Amino acid sequence: MIPTPDRAIPECSNFTRELLSRVGDKWSILIVAHLAEGSLRFNALRRTIGQVSQRMLTLTLKSLEKDGLVSRTVFPTVPPRVEYELTPLGRTLMEPIMALINWSLAHQGDVEKARDLFEIRSAGHIG
Amino acid sequence: MIPTPDRAIPECSNFTRELLSRVGDKWSILIVAHLAEGSLRFNALRRTIGQVSQRMLTLTLKSLEKDGLVSRTVFPTVPPRVEYELTPLGRTLMEPIMALINWSLAHQGDVEKARDLFEIRSAGHIG
Repeated sequence: MIPTPDRAIPECSNFTRELLSRVGDKWSILIVAHLAEGSLRFNALRRTIGQVSQRMLTLTLKSLEKDGLVSRTVFPTVPPRVEYELTPLGRTLMEPIMALINWSLAHQGDVEKARDLFEIRSAGHIG
Repeated sequence: MIPTPDRAIPECSNFTRELLSRVGDKWSILIVAHLAEGSLRFNALRRTIGQVSQRMLTLTLKSLEKDGLVSRTVFPTVPPRVEYELTPLGRTLMEPIMALINWSLAHQGDVEKARDLFEIRSAGHIG
């Protein structure tokens, strides 16, 4: 059975498109996935995600906070401890995001094969 | 119950990350969604998606073709008719993508509210 959207896609507003590009963003996806099991401090989040620049992580967290998906809590210690956590709204995003991650993990071999085949066809001009 | 990835996220390879950024791309998402019901010609696809430039649609279709998610068939008519269709691999992407679209449609009001609240808090310096 083919899954269909609850509403016709052509009705997608600009807002929906923009929201899609936010929640579909690679770093947003990885942040939501890593916060799935609980709150994390900035550096712990950065370590577990890996290969994300401090600037990109800061920007993406800010964007997720603005969209109400992630909360940022400052604890009045010395130095202050800052923790990031999924909000209840952010938690509703976990299921679709995990589905996309699991798809990527499950099908990366297929995509790699397809890319190789595409290269061969392009090189041989037989495609 | 919290959905968890089939494998630990920290093991995500660079390939998985890159694949995530491809399949999470706004235009890829919309193309897969619009091809869910069958093949479409370039212009029909462009019309139904709306607000996508010819260049961006061409690039994204090429990328999806390379990844083995979309097939491009040229029919020897005059002028040649070119149709795009999801491959069997591309069809496996429909479910996670529809989940993300449906999430965006269902929660855009919540995100809008969160953004307004964020603006108010930022303006008042009480956040």
